[in-house]
Amino acid sequence: MTAFSNISKVRIRWADCDPAGIVFYPRYFEIFDTATAALFERALGMTMLQMFKTYHSAGYPLARTRARFIRPTRCGDDVTVESALTFGRASFEVAHHITRDGLTCVECSETRVWVIEDPAAPGRYKAQPVPEAVLARFRG
Amino acid sequence: MTAFSNISKVRIRWADCDPAGIVFYPRYFEIFDTATAALFERALGMTMLQMFKTYHSAGYPLARTRARFIRPTRCGDDVTVESALTFGRASFEVAHHITRDGLTCVECSETRVWVIEDPAAPGRYKAQPVPEAVLARFRG
Amino acid sequence: MTAFSNISKVRIRWADCDPAGIVFYPRYFEIFDTATAALFERALGMTMLQMFKTYHSAGYPLARTRARFIRPTRCGDDVTVESALTFGRASFEVAHHITRDGLTCVECSETRVWVIEDPAAPGRYKAQPVPEAVLARFRG
Amino acid sequence: MTAFSNISKVRIRWADCDPAGIVFYPRYFEIFDTATAALFERALGMTMLQMFKTYHSAGYPLARTRARFIRPTRCGDDVTVESALTFGRASFEVAHHITRDGLTCVECSETRVWVIEDPAAPGRYKAQPVPEAVLARFRG
Repeated sequence: MTAFSNISKVRIRWADCDPAGIVFYPRYFEIFDTATAALFERALGMTMLQMFKTYHSAGYPLARTRARFIRPTRCGDDVTVESALTFGRASFEVAHHITRDGLTCVECSETRVWVIEDPAAPGRYKAQPVPEAVLARFRG
Repeated sequence: MTAFSNISKVRIRWADCDPAGIVFYPRYFEIFDTATAALFERALGMTMLQMFKTYHSAGYPLARTRARFIRPTRCGDDVTVESALTFGRASFEVAHHITRDGLTCVECSETRVWVIEDPAAPGRYKAQPVPEAVLARFRG
Repeated sequence: MTAFSNISKVRIRWADCDPAGIVFYPRYFEIFDTATAALFERALGMTMLQMFKTYHSAGYPLARTRARFIRPTRCGDDVTVESALTFGRASFEVAHHITRDGLTCVECSETRVWVIEDPAAPGRYKAQPVPEAVLARFRG
Repeated sequence: MTAFSNISKVRIRWADCDPAGIVFYPRYFEIFDTATAALFERALGMTMLQMFKTYHSAGYPLARTRARFIRPTRCGDDVTVESALTFGRASFEVAHHITRDGLTCVECSETRVWVIEDPAAPGRYKAQPVPEAVLARFRG
């Protein structure tokens, strides 16, 4: 179970913050969603849409997420998002850590499944192992 | 040029507001987008997705919008959204007014076009007059 | 440990959905945030801002959340959000269930803390038990 | 009337797009809001919150906006946001252009006012010319 990781820098924006002056927590999940995409984009050298097309995928919807909010972040904060992906048999896990000045602000762990459109039921999706060709690109 | 109108009540939510404690203005456009959908849903007695399917539409993307922000609104405010739709030949206009306690807070005017998927170029859209069958439901 | 509950109906909107045609999951957390606010608003008969002012609160930030996404929901779906709140000593839990036509779509459990502005450090918050006067309003 | 300008690169994200696969237009206004903030941050060498504190400002709320949506953008698109700010006497204008591969996708023009908290009515804001000290930083 190797973990593949990526680090990105994000500036917290006015759009992310609520009347308490701190990040409105659903916005953290947008940051995590983008961070997961960045892992795939970097490993595969293509955008998500190109990846979905190349590998006949209909996406990798979220099955579970768990998050802990430890320290608030505010408009103008420059935070670091560290994301580590571990592939399982029929799903994959991504652990995200947001830190500011080295202090943990948010921890999140998500479980996603790779889905394809069900050939027997257009418009419906079914889970499927992440294609070997995708795994190979991550291994590098 | 008859205008068709609809009125909806919206409670401003924490999710809508920014660190200044007032609505973050992009959220007003979500409210307007929903208000335009409500006009069609009410006239046609179906959801947007059903409408798109029934009338082979690919949507009614926005071409222009103009808005004036006159008074701020805050979390917990119950506002009234009054929307009036006027069909043109190849586009339609929707005028939205948001009021609180009878005072105008935001005025917006949007121009939208009805589009279908281009049969000659899948994935591309082309504008087309709003179908007569849709207009008839508004009139009737 | 009595649980206090509330049920609300939500129509899934275009604004909530992603290119896969299903709800973009961070939007569920906006729905849950609003559902938690609705519990307090109903019990106290006031808006959140009025509540914060009346009880000298600086809010009830999220400490943890866990969610499972079981069935997707789509634009136009009318879903039911059932929320049950249980007060602990220094925090409270809210369990949210989203169903469509009686089928569970999303389950979420959140832990929140009631905070006041730290009199010793303006702009900083500290956790505090939910005031007895608030609990009394919930009890009824 | 000199215009001060800034250019930023933005990758369109899954979070920005709707079921038609294109940017949900309220998200463009988040991009513009961030682009306006970037103009001030660059000129003043500080974050927005620092600026508000330094110059006793309560923000620069939007008074008007007008936008034209010419070409759609999609998840994975790398777009360029070019923003030009012109100070007026009691307000300022920002013109934003979003291009992809040199083609204009969205044009927007916004009018904002600089506000301070009204000393005579805490919690209320009043417009005021942009401070000379701020203008000097832009010029210099």
